[in-house]
Amino acid sequence: MAKEGITPRARDYSQWYLDIVQQAQLADYAEVVRGCIVFKPTGYAIWEAIQRGLDDRIKATGHENAYFPLLIPKSFIMKEAEHVEGFAPELIEVTRIGKDELPDPYIIRPTSETIIGFFYSKWIRSYRDLPLLINQWANVMRAEMRTRPFLRTAEFLWQEGHTVHATEADAERETLMILHDVYADFVEKDMAVPVLKGLKTEKEKFPGALRSYSIEAMMQDGRALQSGTSHNLGQNFAKAFDITFTDQNNTIQTAWTTSWGVSSRLIGALIMAHSDDEGLVVPPRLAPTQVVVVPIYKNEAERSSVMAAVEQIIAAWKGRLRFKVDDRDQLTPGYKFNEWELKGIPVRVEVGPKDVEKGSVAVARRDMPGKAGKSFVPQQGLVEHLEGLLTEIQQSLYERALRFRDERTAAVSSYDELKQQVERGFARAYWAGTTADEQRVQDETRATIRCIPLDQPGRAGRCVLTGKETTQEVIFARAY
Amino acid sequence: MAKEGITPRARDYSQWYLDIVQQAQLADYAEVVRGCIVFKPTGYAIWEAIQRGLDDRIKATGHENAYFPLLIPKSFIMKEAEHVEGFAPELIEVTRIGKDELPDPYIIRPTSETIIGFFYSKWIRSYRDLPLLINQWANVMRAEMRTRPFLRTAEFLWQEGHTVHATEADAERETLMILHDVYADFVEKDMAVPVLKGLKTEKEKFPGALRSYSIEAMMQDGRALQSGTSHNLGQNFAKAFDITFTDQNNTIQTAWTTSWGVSSRLIGALIMAHSDDEGLVVPPRLAPTQVVVVPIYKNEAERSSVMAAVEQIIAAWKGRLRFKVDDRDQLTPGYKFNEWELKGIPVRVEVGPKDVEKGSVAVARRDMPGKAGKSFVPQQGLVEHLEGLLTEIQQSLYERALRFRDERTAAVSSYDELKQQVERGFARAYWAGTTADEQRVQDETRATIRCIPLDQPGRAGRCVLTGKETTQEVIFARAY
Repeated sequence: MAKEGITPRARDYSQWYLDIVQQAQLADYAEVVRGCIVFKPTGYAIWEAIQRGLDDRIKATGHENAYFPLLIPKSFIMKEAEHVEGFAPELIEVTRIGKDELPDPYIIRPTSETIIGFFYSKWIRSYRDLPLLINQWANVMRAEMRTRPFLRTAEFLWQEGHTVHATEADAERETLMILHDVYADFVEKDMAVPVLKGLKTEKEKFPGALRSYSIEAMMQDGRALQSGTSHNLGQNFAKAFDITFTDQNNTIQTAWTTSWGVSSRLIGALIMAHSDDEGLVVPPRLAPTQVVVVPIYKNEAERSSVMAAVEQIIAAWKGRLRFKVDDRDQLTPGYKFNEWELKGIPVRVEVGPKDVEKGSVAVARRDMPGKAGKSFVPQQGLVEHLEGLLTEIQQSLYERALRFRDERTAAVSSYDELKQQVERGFARAYWAGTTADEQRVQDETRATIRCIPLDQPGRAGRCVLTGKETTQEVIFARAY
Repeated sequence: MAKEGITPRARDYSQWYLDIVQQAQLADYAEVVRGCIVFKPTGYAIWEAIQRGLDDRIKATGHENAYFPLLIPKSFIMKEAEHVEGFAPELIEVTRIGKDELPDPYIIRPTSETIIGFFYSKWIRSYRDLPLLINQWANVMRAEMRTRPFLRTAEFLWQEGHTVHATEADAERETLMILHDVYADFVEKDMAVPVLKGLKTEKEKFPGALRSYSIEAMMQDGRALQSGTSHNLGQNFAKAFDITFTDQNNTIQTAWTTSWGVSSRLIGALIMAHSDDEGLVVPPRLAPTQVVVVPIYKNEAERSSVMAAVEQIIAAWKGRLRFKVDDRDQLTPGYKFNEWELKGIPVRVEVGPKDVEKGSVAVARRDMPGKAGKSFVPQQGLVEHLEGLLTEIQQSLYERALRFRDERTAAVSSYDELKQQVERGFARAYWAGTTADEQRVQDETRATIRCIPLDQPGRAGRCVLTGKETTQEVIFARAY
């Protein structure tokens, strides 16, 4: 039975998502600013947790953060041919500052390859300046007609890494390192969402890239969500922005660049991967609050003995758990249970007068609503029990998501099978088609090639559409 | 003797500042985007340290972070009369999205009272929703004609708190709590910069505020830098945006709001408060890297014994110090010393073959360049020594800045004295003039009333300009 205000997933998955966003107070529509949302505190706290997990990994792999201008001269976007074609329809233009009409308009950054390329060209002189490894946390804007909180909004928050290398091999190594050690590692370990790592097809790659890689996650409706992309830009942007360096032999060389990003879309991925008809479910490693304590009492005498016990219980928790005590006086325990379930706090600890007598507490797991997830635990050793439980929940969420993905992934050997399979999940298929073939499949099935997995079987088979023999397997799915 | 590339402060303070910004690689001019800069990694790392120090205090005092749209309908800015007058000349307008000309333009937020007021009006229903305590980290833009890195740029980074309260007293308490417990506490303890806390005059207050408070710091040229502002907005924005609530008696009441912000200007304050003719000086509590270790060797045999000693020395440091080992092979120790002095690392540890023999290291303090700040310290117990030294440096920087401010602050009792005193620092003066009088003093002396200090002597005296008797003392100074 779903909670009040939440449409069950089985009835209407799309409405369920919007209900979770609203009921867990993650975001509000900014109808007065086309295509934008407000990140409410509960939603923004998840973004802060995502930032911490990614930023730690980005720095641990040798990158530094910097900050480049929000506005980009419109002429910059025009310098890389594929790039302008990809972004032109979505540009948001600034044409007036104070009383001055601008002869050359600015655009609000949709992504920063061009403006950063301009500076890199000034900064880089010699091979000693390479590799240059910089990341930026920023807001970006792209005109979006159909908006959906976190998943597709005109303004969104992201990080964008931009690096420069002396050789193609160095750039490729960086591109793949980010995919594996930063993006996949974070999404799988912290967000508890399994991902497929793969190469994008020519049709789906980033405008201006040589090769794009992505991590792709499966949502609970079987659709794919691209959760991070890493691009080897080759020398395309280096040529457009004249990023050159003097090598060891004193010869001027054109550099090789990469860019890579993940965005506040990940909040949408988090919601759709784990949440249920009771509300949001947040994995413990990412949860801003991991444990909420709800004291239960009927009168002042009970209140003071329960609160005294709570104080004693939580004394050992500081520095070991992220927790809060919900001691709001005017609300019933039932109201509080409901609120914290909606907001996805991984574990609830209830302390009532009987618990005080017995020296125990009730512990409820958010990932297993109802009696199945409830147990009575001695106060003695409680913090160790909770630490273990949080680890178990983290693991269990990952395994559940992995099982779900495996169940909803199937190899298909005919176009008919492909059409059926993308109704429920990922279709693994041999593929030797052209970009036009790919477009035809998309038009007919609404599924796209999400990626050419890095992990290839290496056996030959027949292309699901053309029948040509090939060793290349791809993943087709409908995507967010 | 100043470093190469740095104009001595005594010769040209303004050029010295620009030299520090460039030589320490803090920022680059973004000449292609009017009035904007790039925060380079060294500069951005200082901003991240400032963010952490402030964010911890903002959260510890009960606020949550959220994120509101970058774009604001231009009509919103028009709703509060003083606000529009203050900001209209500086607005940056978005008039086109993709192919669409916008009938109603957006502006890029110069500050977010209006757009946030719009949402608060939707979110707040009852006294139970109050107080609403939200902060936002964001970029903002204001057209600026004369730019100066960090101090005055068209785009800058900041935090802006926006809170709603049931009563005027609650709003005033919040406004002052932020000034004392968040802003002054952070700037004095972490940045080691002493501040004056005070009320702004009507002429200097935030457009639309009932009362503005600020913290004011003195730079090494005796000029003031406003380092944070906290505004009691009264009911001005609540009325303009219809922020009302039902009170305990079921009566609809207009709410009281506050807003408060500090920005990346603080990086400028940090540079100008502590740095010297050798480069940047960063206080240890704020420094991204507190200790740099420079190994010294002439050949491979020395290199391996020195590096082995370094490994052993730093083994105990993890989790206790923020440090890095500069083991770059192609650079001389002298080059490295120069680079880390320029970048303001508080302590340098040198380890050479003789140190390995003697079981000691050389320790150099950045705040005391040359021999005065250098000492030889046993490797045994080194980490405790360094922890103590960092605390001592932090304290010493604060005291030096405080002494400097005290020496450059004087009470003045005539307009002539005031004119002389603002040439060298802060003038403390009795004041009973009008806004027109204040403007006259500014036109004639280039000094403004920085604040009416919260700490008032309470004795009567004669206004420095009008001769009227008053108990109000103010601080006059030239300001950045």
